[in-house]
Parts: sequence; structure tokens; C-alpha cells
Amino acid sequence: SLVLSPQRRIPDFNSFVGRTNTCGELRTSHLGQEVTLCGWIQYRRQNIFLVLRDFQGLVQVVIPQDESAASVKKILCEAPVESVVQVSGTVVSRPPGQENPKMATGEIEIKVKTAELLNSCKKLPFEIKDFVKKTEALRLQYRYLDLRSFQMQYNLRLRSQMVMKMREYLCNLHGFVDIETPTLFKKTPGGAKEFVVPSREPGKFYSLPQSPQQFKQLLMVGGLDRYFQVARCYRDEGSRPDRQPEFTQIDIEMSFVDQTGIQSLIEDLLRYSWPKDKDPLIVPFPSMTFAEALSTYGTDKPDTRFGMKIVDISDMFRNTKIEILQDVLSQPQGTIKAICIPEGTKYFKRKDVETIRKLATDQFNQEILPVFLNANLNWNSPVAKSIMEEQKLELLRLLEIQEEDMVLLTAGEHNKTCSLLGKLRLECADLLEARGMVLRDSALFSFLWVVDFPLFLPKEDNPGELESAHHPFTAPHPSDIHLLYTEPEKVRSQHYDLVLNGSEIGGGSIRIHDAELQRYILATLLKEDVKLLSHLLQALDYGAPPHGGIALGLDRLLCLVTGAASIRDVIAFPKSFRGHDLMSNAPDYIPPEELRPYHIQVSRPTDSE
Amino acid sequence: SLVLSPQRRIPDFNSFVGRTNTCGELRTSHLGQEVTLCGWIQYRRQNIFLVLRDFQGLVQVVIPQDESAASVKKILCEAPVESVVQVSGTVVSRPPGQENPKMATGEIEIKVKTAELLNSCKKLPFEIKDFVKKTEALRLQYRYLDLRSFQMQYNLRLRSQMVMKMREYLCNLHGFVDIETPTLFKKTPGGAKEFVVPSREPGKFYSLPQSPQQFKQLLMVGGLDRYFQVARCYRDEGSRPDRQPEFTQIDIEMSFVDQTGIQSLIEDLLRYSWPKDKDPLIVPFPSMTFAEALSTYGTDKPDTRFGMKIVDISDMFRNTKIEILQDVLSQPQGTIKAICIPEGTKYFKRKDVETIRKLATDQFNQEILPVFLNANLNWNSPVAKSIMEEQKLELLRLLEIQEEDMVLLTAGEHNKTCSLLGKLRLECADLLEARGMVLRDSALFSFLWVVDFPLFLPKEDNPGELESAHHPFTAPHPSDIHLLYTEPEKVRSQHYDLVLNGSEIGGGSIRIHDAELQRYILATLLKEDVKLLSHLLQALDYGAPPHGGIALGLDRLLCLVTGAASIRDVIAFPKSFRGHDLMSNAPDYIPPEELRPYHIQVSRPTDSE
Repeated sequence: SLVLSPQRRIPDFNSFVGRTNTCGELRTSHLGQEVTLCGWIQYRRQNIFLVLRDFQGLVQVVIPQDESAASVKKILCEAPVESVVQVSGTVVSRPPGQENPKMATGEIEIKVKTAELLNSCKKLPFEIKDFVKKTEALRLQYRYLDLRSFQMQYNLRLRSQMVMKMREYLCNLHGFVDIETPTLFKKTPGGAKEFVVPSREPGKFYSLPQSPQQFKQLLMVGGLDRYFQVARCYRDEGSRPDRQPEFTQIDIEMSFVDQTGIQSLIEDLLRYSWPKDKDPLIVPFPSMTFAEALSTYGTDKPDTRFGMKIVDISDMFRNTKIEILQDVLSQPQGTIKAICIPEGTKYFKRKDVETIRKLATDQFNQEILPVFLNANLNWNSPVAKSIMEEQKLELLRLLEIQEEDMVLLTAGEHNKTCSLLGKLRLECADLLEARGMVLRDSALFSFLWVVDFPLFLPKEDNPGELESAHHPFTAPHPSDIHLLYTEPEKVRSQHYDLVLNGSEIGGGSIRIHDAELQRYILATLLKEDVKLLSHLLQALDYGAPPHGGIALGLDRLLCLVTGAASIRDVIAFPKSFRGHDLMSNAPDYIPPEELRPYHIQVSRPTDSE
Repeated sequence: SLVLSPQRRIPDFNSFVGRTNTCGELRTSHLGQEVTLCGWIQYRRQNIFLVLRDFQGLVQVVIPQDESAASVKKILCEAPVESVVQVSGTVVSRPPGQENPKMATGEIEIKVKTAELLNSCKKLPFEIKDFVKKTEALRLQYRYLDLRSFQMQYNLRLRSQMVMKMREYLCNLHGFVDIETPTLFKKTPGGAKEFVVPSREPGKFYSLPQSPQQFKQLLMVGGLDRYFQVARCYRDEGSRPDRQPEFTQIDIEMSFVDQTGIQSLIEDLLRYSWPKDKDPLIVPFPSMTFAEALSTYGTDKPDTRFGMKIVDISDMFRNTKIEILQDVLSQPQGTIKAICIPEGTKYFKRKDVETIRKLATDQFNQEILPVFLNANLNWNSPVAKSIMEEQKLELLRLLEIQEEDMVLLTAGEHNKTCSLLGKLRLECADLLEARGMVLRDSALFSFLWVVDFPLFLPKEDNPGELESAHHPFTAPHPSDIHLLYTEPEKVRSQHYDLVLNGSEIGGGSIRIHDAELQRYILATLLKEDVKLLSHLLQALDYGAPPHGGIALGLDRLLCLVTGAASIRDVIAFPKSFRGHDLMSNAPDYIPPEELRPYHIQVSRPTDSE
């Protein structure tokens, strides 16, 4: 699966350089040809064979043994592994019985005439073989060696090809304009995650924006109509897994478009650029409201490759005598919910169940009630006797319970129980897979649109006030506009997320194009200082077209497509968890005199405390 | 010339949106079709006609006058200019005699049935018409309005298309891999022009690199073989005309390539991506050594669209009696040189000649001797009588002097006289063109390779020491390697510049791939701290292939291709001369508490002095 599918036209990898062919491309169709190859010595067998590697693959070179070729033999036998050599010779058949069917070039070998050592290699910190396990820190420190692995070559080349297909689709087929927007910009109000860049004017700073959001909207006001950019974005959030301080998004904005238009565009774009070595995508993608995603999967990014859906069983207990459940159901938003873990009774150990219950109390302050079903669907649970037989049957039906399944029950406020069960659903899936069950097919790409998000959320540190659920330029849902002036917390937005296998890989919205509405939301509802966004508000006053867009997270998309363990495996030179470049040792100290032009000085933590 | 040439396949501009057609695409072939258009009101004539504009052009809309369409009429008559409207109606022929041949859609008009005001426009700071002159500051402040001009639309769309063609060429035809490299990196030793970015670790900074130089070389060590990137680069050099703090380069690196290979690639790349509305490029481009460029044009980036070459006339004066010339010629590198200004005697005023002489004394501390030739080629100059008749005839022949030309003579050290005359050559060309002479054809694209640069230059502040003429990774010329250990100042490099119409639009080199040689040059010759580049030196030890590359300055290339007055006209959101974003007012002050996470504080100029 590490062989890239042929493109419509095979590119010429040998133009403008000294070689005639790549090592990896040689086949029996090349028999008899005189070739010149350049590559790295992968290994040598008994000074008779040498395997030469380049980005396309491996080829076997026969080291000449006759006296007249002594100098060629000396070069090829003495050069250390991973040295760079150029060889010229003839493509010949391997002797019968010596073909290697596991090797793409396994039917041929090179009978060498001349050889040149282009560069010798010193002793390596690790072997350049995909199966040799290295720590990630070592890989990152010697990234230029790690990049020689077939896996990294595949990942980076697939990324390049997939982005190229996206560009063809957007630019050549649909008239989008690729426009570069600045990355030295002004700090966004409240943009706590923006890196700052000191300028030569005392006290003045640029900032590195988290996205080209303002620029893409201003381009629509400027009549550019269809914009896209493979945009470098920056986010300073210290060390979080699968986040990088700089990352890349496929950034798109269109005028005169609605939500359906953007969704169709993205579906067709992904279908067009999807790697040919995977199953073709089926469009349109399914869609789900935020409310449904939360109540069914306990998250706004459901992994829909498997079931284990959350089921509301409150109605079964409306007339229960169990006091604690009565209490819960009498609260506002009080519910009783459950998920069924297939074969959980069979696979889970006591310890697993304890871990699950601890997670529920520690992270959600909620009790979890596990019910174990035996082979006869008999209940094994402390509550078994408090529940009537007909309720049990109803539960079996609602949760589609099979023999040896396990059910997790919880009671509490709607959002909280959903989040808890959503979290447990993923935890249990991990546990089941660790025990050998196949729940999530790695060849399955399960796309999902999540729509109808709330426009605002209560502020975390001050729930009496509102903040934007996404960003303040998101347009309200047309059906809910009247609520803006009465119950703004109930307004849904025209935001949409694209989810793949439980990861958010894109998000966008129809934007506000009415200056009055934008001012009302910014100033009255969000209580932001509108002066800082005056240029954007003014732009809306000067004939802004209705517009909307989306951004796809390229690193995460490629990570899922290649099945990589981390986004660092689809980035050529990623930073470590802590934001360090382990190869060059960035960030690093710089002498005070180099800070002087920027009128800043370092205040050590001790200085300020 | 503002109409883009058709692409191989015309993109669908109307997919995924509400309109059926763009305003600008409608022709007689659309007659009778029901269309829905979205656009801006360009102008209105007597409440009868309205001209609607989108990115593709203008179309005339007939405002209905009958009572039944009163609401449509009201919308179309009341909406201010630059409001956004959607209209539906039928494409009809204009009445005979009312066709407008100057308008691409001039044979048709739209008979409107329905209209909707999508957004109303307030009073504008300037009219959206290309012929209305605005100051650049006003254009930058309201960039989103300036972008609506046909010229800016053309420039940005041409840029997008040309870059797309380059990508097709590199990626699809020649197997290059588009790889994104980090922009948060480590400060380069001596990188005084690199912006710094404080990290959350006290005293540690990233820097924004001036180019992906180190990364592209490391990719070659990593076996990526053919890399390209449309790379964002950063350079903090305050305010210089036609420089931007962030700029874009087409960045290319190849393994196993020589200088000829890179040059052929670039020639073919430009030929392939050259706009179809210009004359096709003729390849290969001419080539000239640095020494020849300096002695003939007085610069390393000659504008070869016109003559006025520098001629060395020292030999004519070897036996002169003129003491001052004897003195000069007896000095090392002492020369006498001249350029001939065509029709200079006719066009130049006394004042012009004074300006030229003043420039020579002020900037070069050199005397210039002007010789005016009349219609009979008679000399008018104070030195006329000191020069023998046969010398005069020889001068006429060498400089190809015509009637009424002017000759500028100077004597002094070779490099200095060349630089002076090179400067005067361009000054005089400007003056001649200001007087109406056509010297430089605006349709002519005169490409030139300049090669064989010196590898080192004497340090400006300490001429006893050497610094890299370009960068320390440039490989020496193979014929000069022995000189590295004896006379390093005489070593030529494998650097090459690409010059277009007197502007440097690209530069590159074959790199050093030998760790020993790289260490010797860095440590012994350049006296750099090799620790800061240890990762690169180490990489060369681990099987680095021979490699080389180039970078093309995309902004400047597009500026020349579009004939724009400034690179700011080919960038969507450029910074001002002083590095400001005049629209959003970046860079800006930020409150001290937002600097605290970065452990920096502002030191006002008064603090430190």
C-alpha cells in the first residue's frame, strides 16, 4: 500500500539530471538498456550484490568480480551503507530462480560498468529501515534520515499529490483564485493564542493569525468571488497532542453561496482529490444536527464507524419507585441514558469496569451503573431487582442488546450524561479493540456533516454572558434571527463542521454580511470593542456580498488518510510536543543586542514576581 | 490586455452558487436564455439602464418601466452605486444602433423580471473606476474597495494562474514534491534581518526565516530528490521600496543536478507558465559572467533591453601626454571608460549634465567628462584639443557614435568606473525616456543568466576578512577549488542569478555536499560559529547527495509580467513602505499583560539611553 497510484500522466523524474532512470522504476521492459542510476547503498551481500535505493524503490546491483573492474569493485565494496553512489551499467535478467517476487524490481538486476562514490556516509545513529523501531525524539533529531524511510516518502508525496488535485479542482475546474494573505497582521481582540512579533517601532507588535478569516471575508468584499489558499496558520497553545504551533489549512471562501453550496463543493473536492489507492468516496456525506450528535454520540464530532449509540431511557422510568431516579427526572433536563457495549461482559475485566466508573466520577462527577448480560440475557447488576421485567425487555429492545453485552446506565442532566457516555463510548471502543475486537475498520472513511450549532455559548468564566461558539462573524440561522433580540442563547448558527472518523477535519459558516447585524452582535451581545474591527465593519457597509466558506485541516486530514499515528508523520519538519524543533534546537536563546532593534527585553519569571 | 487568455478548459464559475451566469460572460450566444446574475451596481443611466459588474465584466440591465414591475424598478432605481443586487431575466439583443463595441457584452442586455437588493452600499471614499486616480495610501486603507478594480482583479488572477501552471509543470510533468517547511525556526547566525518570535519559555525565541534554505538542503539529504514550494519568506529591513516584510518565492531544490540542469529547468518552467497574452519566451536565455556584466553594464543585473554599453578605452590612451590619465593608468586596475548616450547632445540640457556630474562626484567621488557631438560628429568638449584626431576616430568606432550623441568619459579603478557608468547608463536612459525617446520596449522581456560570481567578498566593515557573496552553502566553481587554500578571494562560485529587464528575479547555486569542505569554509574562511549549524554539517556527513537549487522572487516576477508600478500591485494585502497594514493598522500596541506569557517587556528608547 506504499506504492502511489499512477497519475494521469506519469511525470518525468529523470529530466534535467545525470541519471537515466530511477532505481525503483526498472522492470523487465528495461532489459538490455544502458542505465545510469544515483542512490543510497541500502545493503551489501557478501561483496557480490549491492542494493541501491532512491525515492522510488530498491534495485539490485551486481558487483563485478573480474580483475579489469577492480576499481569499480573497490568503490562498491568499501563505501559504507547509506553512502551515495552513481552507477552505470546494463539492465539484465536475474538468473532463473533468483527472482525476488517481493521486490518491485525483483526480476532484474544491474550489471555495472562504472561506479562513482558521490558521498561517503559516517556511522548512522539508526538504520534506515522502516521496520527498525526508533523513538520519536530520535527520529525528529535526525529528521533528514527519518525522511528516507518509505513510509515518510509515501506520506509526503501523497500529501503533495492530494493538495495538487485539490488545486486542480478549485483553480482549473471551478475558477477559484489562489490568493496569498499576510501572516504579519494585527492582534485579534481576545486572540490569546496568537504569537506576537515585535516590530522596530517601540511597543508595536504584529501577530501571526490563527487563520486568514478577516482577509478571506475582505476578499469577498473586494469582489474576488471565489478564493482559496493553502494557508499557513499559527496557534500558540503550548503542548497539546496532535497540535502544532504552525499548521496548514485548505482555506476557501465564496460569494453568493449558501450552506448547501459549500457542502457540495467540499464533497466533490474530496471525491476528486481522494487517493486512487483507496475506495472512492460516496457523496453526499450524511448530515446530523449538533443536538442529535450530542444526544446520540455525546460529542460534536461523532465517530460513525461503529454503533454503541447513546439511548435515552428516561421514559421507561417515568413511574419508577427508585427514589434517586425520580429525583433526577424531576430536575430540568434530567434524563436517564444508556449505551450498550457489545460483548462487554465477555471482554471486560472487573478492573476495566472500575476504570470506567472512576473516569465518570473523576471527570464528570457522575455515577455509572454497569449491567452485565450473560449468555441467556440474564441481568447481573445490583439494580436488577429494582427493575421490572417489562422494563428489562424494553431495554433489550431499545439498546439492541445481545448476549454477553454490557450496558452502562447513568442518570443526570442531559448534556452532562451525553458527554459522559460519549466519552465512555470511545474508551470502551479502545478497550474492546485492545482485547482483539475489530470495531473501527481502518479502511473505512466515515465522513459526517454536523450542522445547526448554537451561535453563542455561555462564557466559561462568567456564564451570565455570551461568547461566540465559533467566531463572531458566523451568521445566525435564518429561522432564528428573531431570537437574537429576545433569547440569543437559543439562536442556532449557519456553522457546519466536517467530521471524519471522529475527528473534526473542517469547519466553516455562512458569514454575516450586514454591517448592522454584525455591529449588534459584536457590541451588544458579545460586548467586544468594535474599534478593533472597524475596518471589517466598514467593509460590510461598502457593498459586501453574501458569502461563506470553510477551512479544512490539511495535517489532520492527511494523518487520517495515511493512517499515521500522529500529524507529525505527515509534516516534513514537525515540532515536538513542547513546540521544539529537536533537529536545530529552536526556539533558542538570542543575545540581548539582537533584541534591541525591537525594543524588547526578556523579563525572567523571577523579575516579575 | 486586461482579459485573461482562455485556459485549456474553461472553469465553471457558476457551480455551487445561486447565479446561472457571470455578468461578464454573456454574449449573443446566450440570447433568449433565462439568467440569474449577482453583482455590484457600476452605474445607472436616467433610471432606464443599470450596469452590473462582477469579476468577469460589465453587463447592461434594462430597468422595467411598466406599472406591474414597480417593485423591481424601485429596487434598481433606489439602490446606491456599488450596492449588491441579484437580478433574474432574459438575455436580449440591444436595439439596432445601441450596441456598444467597446463593451465585451455590448451586443446584449438583460430584460429583468425580478430583482433583490442583497446589500446596500454607503457613500464610498472613492469611485470604483480604474481611471479615477487615488493615492496609494487611500487605496491601501480601503484595499477591499481597491481590489474591485479590473486591474487588481487581473493582476491577482494572473498571479494565481501563473503559479498554477508552474505547479502543473513541476508536480505533474516533472515529479517535484510540494513540501511545506516551517516558518517558526531558529535564528540563523548573523541573520540580522530575521523577525524574532518570543516563545513561552523565558528568553527563547523562534525566528521567521528569510528562506527555506536549510530545510530544502535537508530534504535532499532526506532523499526527497525534487522539492518545490511556493514559500512565504520574511525579511525585516525596515522600509525599502519594492520590498515587503513578507514575500513569496518559488523555491526549488534537486539532487544529482548541475548548474545547466537547474538553468534548463527554470527556462522551461517559465516558458510553460508564461501568460498566453504575451509573446512566447525564447529559450535558452543568454548567459553572461559576473565579470562581463560588471565591465559591460556596470552591474550584476544588466537591463539588456538596450545598448549604451560600457567600453574600455584605456588602450587608446596608453601613450597619452595627459598627465591625469597617465596617473590613473599607472594605478592597479586603472582604466579609462566611456558610454555613448544616443542623441544625448540633442536631448540633454546643461542642467541634466550637471546632475550627472554631481551624481558621479557625490556617490562615487569620480569626475565625469562629457563630450558632445554635433551633427557633423565634431567634438564639443574641453578635452577635445588634448586628444589626437586618430584617437577621436577610434573612439567613434569603438562606441559606435552617431551624430548628436553624447559620450561620458571617466578614469579610475575598474570596478568603481564600471559601477559609476552602470548607474549613469540607467539615469540617462530614464532621462531620455522622460524626453520622449523609446529605449525600453514594455512588451520586451529580456531574460539573462549571470554566472561565475565570486564566492567571497571582503567584509564591508573589515576588508581584511571574507564574507559569503551569497550564502555559505554555495559550492565553489570546480576549476577554482585549489584556490580555496591559497587565494580564496579569487574563487568563483557555482551561483547563478536570473535577471529580467534589469531586475534580479531569481538566484540559486549548486550547494556544498561535502561536510569537510563546508566545515573548512564556515570555520576557517568565514570564522563562523559552526555549533549553530551543527545539524546541517552532521546531515552532510550522513550521505548527502550532490544537490542544487534556485528561488524565484514571485512578487517581483509578477510585477514585471503585469507591468505594475510596484510589487504592492500584485499582492492582495501589501504593507506600506514603512511596513504598516494601513487597513487594520498593524503593527499595533498590545497591552503588557498579553506580553507576560512570553516573558518580554517593552523597553522604550528612553529606558535604554
